[in-house]
Parts: sequence; structure tokens; C-alpha cells
Amino acid sequence: MKRIELSETREFSPLGMKTILLHDSAHFKIINFNLKANALFPIHSHDLDGQLSILVIEGEGLFLADNEATMPARTGDMLISDIREPHGVKAITDMRIVVTIAPPI
Amino acid sequence: MKRIELSETREFSPLGMKTILLHDSAHFKIINFNLKANALFPIHSHDLDGQLSILVIEGEGLFLADNEATMPARTGDMLISDIREPHGVKAITDMRIVVTIAPPI
Repeated sequence: MKRIELSETREFSPLGMKTILLHDSAHFKIINFNLKANALFPIHSHDLDGQLSILVIEGEGLFLADNEATMPARTGDMLISDIREPHGVKAITDMRIVVTIAPPI
Repeated sequence: MKRIELSETREFSPLGMKTILLHDSAHFKIINFNLKANALFPIHSHDLDGQLSILVIEGEGLFLADNEATMPARTGDMLISDIREPHGVKAITDMRIVVTIAPPI
């Protein structure tokens, strides 16, 4: 059992995206990504079984999907995607997301 | 791929705890629990492999563990626990949490 304070991982990189691994186990991986305004988490996918959730905990941006589709990504919005499906995030404001991947990759 | 707005599931029950299943698949289950101030999500555990995360997205309370241990549970705090470990939540204010369980139970 462990407790994490996301207020302690509120770090941004001038390069655009800061990656903080919160947890990694045989069951799931949990990562906090902090994106500067206008930063891009490029669309990607992996040819693996599994799903991921992306929860916006601060700020505003867009979820990115295949064929240039976009969806609003505001604080409290969550995207659930197969790992195989192309997915990404574009920040509009400074933005923080928590990504959970199961099984971990 | 699906998008969920947690602002749309901000419902509280006069009975104490409102449970909203956000997602259930072979990979993980994601549930939003909304607790009224002073509501208790009693300590429990299951004799199963796997882990869960509890992320506080609003409000303040306590994470509960074995032997009457408690830990602060404020907005942005996350608890990660084995499914086998006793875990629970006590709300102090109205409180919203997102629980991710992998593999789903």
C-alpha cells in the first residue's frame, strides 16, 4: 500500500512534457504527464492487448484520435482507449493528466 | 475508445455513497464513488491477485487501512493497494474518488 500526493509532482518542463512514473507493477502502470500549454503528446499506439485511461486532473486540451479526430479534454474528462488504438493529447493550457495502463507496457 | 465527463457523474446520495460504473472490461474496472460528508466506504479486501488505485478528485477525507491506520485523502491524493490488503475511505467533506481495479473484480 502506498500513498501519492499529485500536488508533489506538479512539475513542468520547458521542453513541453514532464513524465513522472507513479506506479509500476504486474497489474498496471500509472504515469503522471504534465504538459506545458501547447505541448503535444503525439498520437501513438502499440500492437498489444490492453487498455488505458487518461484522466485530466488540471487544465484543458484535446484528446487526439485516429483520422485527426479530436475531443475536448478538460479537468475531469477521461478517455478510455485500447492500447492498439491511436491516442494522444494536445495541451491548450498547462495541463496535467494521469494515465493508467493495464496490463502495464 | 470512449470519453467520459466526470462533471456529468457528480451525483450524491442521501444514503451516503453513490456508485457510478465508468468502465468495465477484461483489463480493468473504473468506478466513480461520490461520498457525502461523513460517509464511510468500509474497510474491505478480497482474496484475489490484483491491485487498485483510489484517486481523490474532489473533497477531503481519510484513506483507511488495516489496524485502524488512516492517511490523509485530499484532492489529488492517490492510494495504491493490493486487492488483498484491507482498504477503505472515510469522507470528511463531500468527496469524489475514482477507483481503478486491475484485473477487474
